Amino acid sequence: MKSLLNVRIVMVNTSHPGNIGAAARAMKNMGLSDLVLVQPKIFPSPEAVARASGADDLLVSARICDSLEDAIADCALVIGASARRRSIPWPEVSPRECAELVIRNPARVAILLGREHSGLNNDELERCHYLLHIPCNPEFSSLNVASALQIIAYEMRVAVEALSAESGKGNTKLATGAEMESFYGHLDVALREFGFLHKKKNTMSLLRRLRLIFNRAQLEGHELHILRGILTAARHELRRARLPDDTPKDL
Amino acid sequence: MKSLLNVRIVMVNTSHPGNIGAAARAMKNMGLSDLVLVQPKIFPSPEAVARASGADDLLVSARICDSLEDAIADCALVIGASARRRSIPWPEVSPRECAELVIRNPARVAILLGREHSGLNNDELERCHYLLHIPCNPEFSSLNVASALQIIAYEMRVAVEALSAESGKGNTKLATGAEMESFYGHLDVALREFGFLHKKKNTMSLLRRLRLIFNRAQLEGHELHILRGILTAARHELRRARLPDDTPKDL
Repeated sequence: MKSLLNVRIVMVNTSHPGNIGAAARAMKNMGLSDLVLVQPKIFPSPEAVARASGADDLLVSARICDSLEDAIADCALVIGASARRRSIPWPEVSPRECAELVIRNPARVAILLGREHSGLNNDELERCHYLLHIPCNPEFSSLNVASALQIIAYEMRVAVEALSAESGKGNTKLATGAEMESFYGHLDVALREFGFLHKKKNTMSLLRRLRLIFNRAQLEGHELHILRGILTAARHELRRARLPDDTPKDL
Repeated sequence: MKSLLNVRIVMVNTSHPGNIGAAARAMKNMGLSDLVLVQPKIFPSPEAVARASGADDLLVSARICDSLEDAIADCALVIGASARRRSIPWPEVSPRECAELVIRNPARVAILLGREHSGLNNDELERCHYLLHIPCNPEFSSLNVASALQIIAYEMRVAVEALSAESGKGNTKLATGAEMESFYGHLDVALREFGFLHKKKNTMSLLRRLRLIFNRAQLEGHELHILRGILTAARHELRRARLPDDTPKDL
């Protein structure tokens, strides 16, 4: 199974040591192990150990940093949990989307969790590539920090198990972005030859709809190959049929 | 939005009042409100109120029962959270599957959460229609009871929001089974005309792969219409090109 060893959890300025312990337990439950604490208010603490409930190895190995910069210096992707949908137009992901980003990213990823009462401040949010928002009751939206982490880590666990189940199925491999783009180019050319595209006023919107369909299908490489084979066969037949009648047809 | 008012959380014999408070907070965060406590060790308690962190209304309205029978008497569906995969051959669901069961069930549903150290006993498990297992690290698999509830309730929230988004999209409607079958028939005929199918030895397997792709894409009616339009356009062009040279081509 792919591991989650490249995922670092960074807790910023946590007030209650119990939350650090609960976070360690949630991490270990889901198979995470890299915990970094930026200026924790009280740590180490017996309360943290009690709430870790057997995950004290993560507390022992936790790194304590003076600054967020230090904590994420070696991370290629930084995602900040944010209770509120901020006015700053940062790309926002759900826990499920976050998990997808993380498991397909081989580099080190940091998930930032802010203070109990005020979350991450704007300086900290600006270091994030994505903000993570957990779906919740808008009238009571402040989750406990370890509970938020529990959800985030759970989604990673589900994603990693799904990935292993997938790869266990044999050598199925999703088509790459470049392969998909090349397919859409092929599709565009073929649809024009079939007289399908130029008939439509709204060509761009049609191609966009087709992208939606095929992106949703999560095509594997060999499936893309079949679809391209169909386009090639149709275009080949069409070109053959358009040759003058006296041309030998099996050239 | 569909509510989760029909979902009852039943905590059996909980030892730590802090866990009851954390459970109330997790419930309210995700839009749940019906909490029943079966023989809690210590309740009410200031520790529960502290950990509820604003969800004390759920603690006040929580019903306390002497027996599990009382707690679930009016529930049509009972699902028990169980850390271990038991030898008893009960149907097992994941939190995501549980959420699907719950939101499509109009009757009252109970989710049972057992004791901190020993979970639900066999008598209690036997009252369940399903056992719920949360994916986790097999080497450290015991989740805190409120954390387990957080995950379960989160999946319900996601499912309920997805359901509302679906019904809010207006007249988007998945293509029916009959429409899909008719499309596959159309595809079969077209692929033969393009010379794509007869070239392949394994025609059935190819069609089956195409079915897998398009079933996975969860096509909406109007999307199916676009795909059929492409096939029709290609076949039309091919037939037109195959007409003898002296036939007027725009007939």
